[in-house]
Amino acid sequence: MDTMEGLSRSHYCGEVTEAEKGKEVILCGWVERRRDHGGLIFIDLRDRTGVIQVVASPDYEEQSFKKAEQVRTEYVLAIRGEVRMRDEATVNQKMPTGTIEVRCDEMRILNSSKTPPFYIEDNVDVDESIRLKYRYLDLRRPEMQKNLIMRHRVKHAMREFLDKNGFFEIETPELCKSTPEGARDYLVPSRVNPGKFYALPQSPQLFKQLLMISGMDRYFQIARCFRDEDLRADRQPEFTQLDMEMSFMSQEQILQLTEQLMHYIFEEVLGHDIQLPIQRITWDYAMKYYGSDKPDLRFDMKFTDITELVRGTEFKVFRSVIEKGGQVKAINVKGYSQIPRRELDGLVEYVGHYGAKGLAWICFTPDGIKSQVMKFLGEDTIQAIGTACGSETGDLVLMIADKPAVVAAALGELRKEMARRTHLIDENKFAFTWVLDFPMFEYNEEEKRYVAMHHPFTAPRDEDLDKLETDPGHVYAKAYDLVLNGVELGGGSLRIYQQDIQQRVFKAIGLTPEDANEKFGFLLRAFEYGAPPHGGLAFGLDRMIMLMLKRKSIRDVIAFPKTQNAIDQMSEAPGEVAVKQLRELHIHVDAEDKNLVKK
Amino acid sequence: MDTMEGLSRSHYCGEVTEAEKGKEVILCGWVERRRDHGGLIFIDLRDRTGVIQVVASPDYEEQSFKKAEQVRTEYVLAIRGEVRMRDEATVNQKMPTGTIEVRCDEMRILNSSKTPPFYIEDNVDVDESIRLKYRYLDLRRPEMQKNLIMRHRVKHAMREFLDKNGFFEIETPELCKSTPEGARDYLVPSRVNPGKFYALPQSPQLFKQLLMISGMDRYFQIARCFRDEDLRADRQPEFTQLDMEMSFMSQEQILQLTEQLMHYIFEEVLGHDIQLPIQRITWDYAMKYYGSDKPDLRFDMKFTDITELVRGTEFKVFRSVIEKGGQVKAINVKGYSQIPRRELDGLVEYVGHYGAKGLAWICFTPDGIKSQVMKFLGEDTIQAIGTACGSETGDLVLMIADKPAVVAAALGELRKEMARRTHLIDENKFAFTWVLDFPMFEYNEEEKRYVAMHHPFTAPRDEDLDKLETDPGHVYAKAYDLVLNGVELGGGSLRIYQQDIQQRVFKAIGLTPEDANEKFGFLLRAFEYGAPPHGGLAFGLDRMIMLMLKRKSIRDVIAFPKTQNAIDQMSEAPGEVAVKQLRELHIHVDAEDKNLVKK
Repeated sequence: MDTMEGLSRSHYCGEVTEAEKGKEVILCGWVERRRDHGGLIFIDLRDRTGVIQVVASPDYEEQSFKKAEQVRTEYVLAIRGEVRMRDEATVNQKMPTGTIEVRCDEMRILNSSKTPPFYIEDNVDVDESIRLKYRYLDLRRPEMQKNLIMRHRVKHAMREFLDKNGFFEIETPELCKSTPEGARDYLVPSRVNPGKFYALPQSPQLFKQLLMISGMDRYFQIARCFRDEDLRADRQPEFTQLDMEMSFMSQEQILQLTEQLMHYIFEEVLGHDIQLPIQRITWDYAMKYYGSDKPDLRFDMKFTDITELVRGTEFKVFRSVIEKGGQVKAINVKGYSQIPRRELDGLVEYVGHYGAKGLAWICFTPDGIKSQVMKFLGEDTIQAIGTACGSETGDLVLMIADKPAVVAAALGELRKEMARRTHLIDENKFAFTWVLDFPMFEYNEEEKRYVAMHHPFTAPRDEDLDKLETDPGHVYAKAYDLVLNGVELGGGSLRIYQQDIQQRVFKAIGLTPEDANEKFGFLLRAFEYGAPPHGGLAFGLDRMIMLMLKRKSIRDVIAFPKTQNAIDQMSEAPGEVAVKQLRELHIHVDAEDKNLVKK
Repeated sequence: MDTMEGLSRSHYCGEVTEAEKGKEVILCGWVERRRDHGGLIFIDLRDRTGVIQVVASPDYEEQSFKKAEQVRTEYVLAIRGEVRMRDEATVNQKMPTGTIEVRCDEMRILNSSKTPPFYIEDNVDVDESIRLKYRYLDLRRPEMQKNLIMRHRVKHAMREFLDKNGFFEIETPELCKSTPEGARDYLVPSRVNPGKFYALPQSPQLFKQLLMISGMDRYFQIARCFRDEDLRADRQPEFTQLDMEMSFMSQEQILQLTEQLMHYIFEEVLGHDIQLPIQRITWDYAMKYYGSDKPDLRFDMKFTDITELVRGTEFKVFRSVIEKGGQVKAINVKGYSQIPRRELDGLVEYVGHYGAKGLAWICFTPDGIKSQVMKFLGEDTIQAIGTACGSETGDLVLMIADKPAVVAAALGELRKEMARRTHLIDENKFAFTWVLDFPMFEYNEEEKRYVAMHHPFTAPRDEDLDKLETDPGHVYAKAYDLVLNGVELGGGSLRIYQQDIQQRVFKAIGLTPEDANEKFGFLLRAFEYGAPPHGGLAFGLDRMIMLMLKRKSIRDVIAFPKTQNAIDQMSEAPGEVAVKQLRELHIHVDAEDKNLVKK
């Protein structure tokens, strides 16, 4: 193998332009392709910026030509040579460097390569598990490099904006104390303190509030967080969060600052101009019209509540639902009245996954109205429903009657599904919305008590304080979520900073002062020493970048992600460890005698 | 308590200047001091920028004056009022805002405070364990706020420089695989993979090399790292590292880029102009003249090797050391010849801590030469030693005879100690040096084999490749450390990227291909697919910021540090966890039956 000795890269491959015509360049990179043609060898040389064509010939430099003959895909080369225009016939308009090439005056083979298990190119059709096992090759693909580079740019833009706005990035511990609230903790046994454990942080929530009590005023951190949950497609055991907290600011000021942050990031990284102010809807509104606290507003298709229209009908299914306190809601699907009967049957099945026991439909076809509930509701009611839903000829109305929670879930999912089927979603659109005024509490049927919807430090709205004891179900919080294209980008709240209100909230969720003290002791003590009014928010960075880049999986925007079994397929983590390590940590593995660990 | 409702902070306390005279400001902060004088109440209001005086009087606003009467230290206030010049008599030149004050036209008490356990002021004389327990109050002290703000600025400057220079910050996993090399790992039991464990990363070393194989070209990360070691004063179980790696660059290019990075940070954050290029010494030179691979070059006081001068003497102590392959080295302490005999005896004890069995001394006093070895060495030799050491009248020469390693350690420490005693150290100085050409291997007496001095991926110098098999003790590495004021700021190396050389290095440290494969399997596989020449370095961020800020402890530059027992005294992490949590993780605590964990 050759070395770089005496050579110093002058340009990245993708950054050589016609301006360098006639100049000597020194390039380094990987062989994407080699072609032998007419006594010449053509090599496409790739680095992170792109690809350029290198031409070797015995007429240019004999030694280099001989080396070029040995070269294969993914060999690592350094090339010295003159930039020149290609012959008209060989110009490649699809390549940014397609009008030029480099005459190979010197070639060094810096390293060889085995044949990779898949082609290093975009849209490669290869099983994800192979891509993850050979992640270092997968990351050579231009689209993966772009993802990671954009991720860097997003974080850099965030930091620039926050630094300019007086935020300090302060690192908080990752070896923390386990708290029983929230998701399952990852635990770390302590060697020095036998029988005790650290927990990896689910978020820096407590520490950022303590920093506000410290008077740091404006804090942020791009922080690693950990949750030991069963993984869904868009979850990772470790994930990255933009975490912010600020003092002496109103909710209005926090929302505005956050909008400016988002505007800056999208502008800097994507050149996209988010229209400010971002629209705001309340949680009640979101649930009422979209059945979701993170509605996809790239399309409209709001729910219409037709409960009152059908309250008086003979139709038993509707009537019994309404009598039990349920409701009937409908969506109008534009221009889909010709839906085949079989597809309609499929939709019944679809909403069944979300708990709905049935689906009623009305097709306002050009040939007249068709509906399986016509005979129960009568044409007048059917017409009235159509009017309420704003239906026109050619539209399809879909109705669900059930408990409000089931209607919300099932009709909400159906709304998104029908939008996909009718191509209503503009994939290029970024539809932001704030969702405000979340309920403080939700009733937990299992535990027969109210629990905090966000977390028990979220401040209730001033006007609802009186209801904390009498009507907790109708107390709303100073909480806000930012939603993009139907995905929760992040959210936060103003926090309780006054001890008397904190105690009343704890009481509302059935937490005695003793329990509260055991769970949050040191934070509550800190609040006794002059806590300022404060609030903040947190954004899931992986998800944000995935949405910005229009990717389908967060694994595409994480350099070394884990599978749904929380395994790193490349390094094979987690792995077995030596018994000596366990002894030092004062722990045994349950299955130790089954030889699950190395002796 | 009052709320902020309708008020919006207009200024930070410390940023109000005479330019605001006559204007209304709205300030928020904590009560640093309250004084009642002449019917007025004076409140020093503090936020993260500084302190300003607020004056309340019933003549200004009755209600606010009444509130001011209730106010105590660390209460949280919002103040609205007009900025005015102070009376000449009350001007405080020590305060940046000492010529102005704010007339209190409105006061809101946003929160009360218990009396804090210590004063919120700099140079507070309080036990560190109290400071750590009430860290949120400790962090209110201006010097601690400054430390954290400077830390933010350092990281921000790093990122700016590296972004401008084409480095991408890429996040690597923290749930990794345990590798048996290096320090002790923190382990994390896996719930989904029973009996298996993640390890928290000691550094992102393997991942950054994989990113180079991925063609990312220039990587950095300000990364959290973990080592479960017994803690010394300047160590923490979790610490932060600036981690860098780059491809296709020579050692010279890496050193130059690093120097520019350092220059940028010191300039941006401290306004300090590091003189470039930073001086370079070899590891051999550092050991020979300073007895340390991280010499403090704020002062000179080099070692003089006097072995040859005393080889022929009758002095048995020296002779027997020399005969066994040892050496005799001396330092010259300027102007310290009048050292009392008792202090000399103390020095003998001092070097004893570092393994030296004795210490010989020569005092070139104005009244003549005094030395306990005069009669053994004779005046000629004593004079010759003085000449060799560059001694003048008034100087003290200290000599140690021992094995080279002991001479280096003991005389190296003595050198620093004598510099402190003779006030030779300019505390305002930043003395940088590169230490280059580290040995590849050091001989491990216990294991009777060579081990890698840095890590086994460090590249040997090209000119030493031949010695890998024949004379590993004289193979030097393409490794470099950056040293500041006697502390290793960071270091790195060019890496081996060619498989044949990697195998030879493994062989030199007695690692069979099978062992190597078990330990580093996936990395070695990755190297088969076209690894580029690459190298990098890592800097300990906590230590760097400590040195920049001239602090004595890294705990002063970490928001929430742990004690030497790896305990967070505020949150009391690590803590006990529920047995249910352990069962889910498939582990038992050894002492579980002793009730060390909650049932």
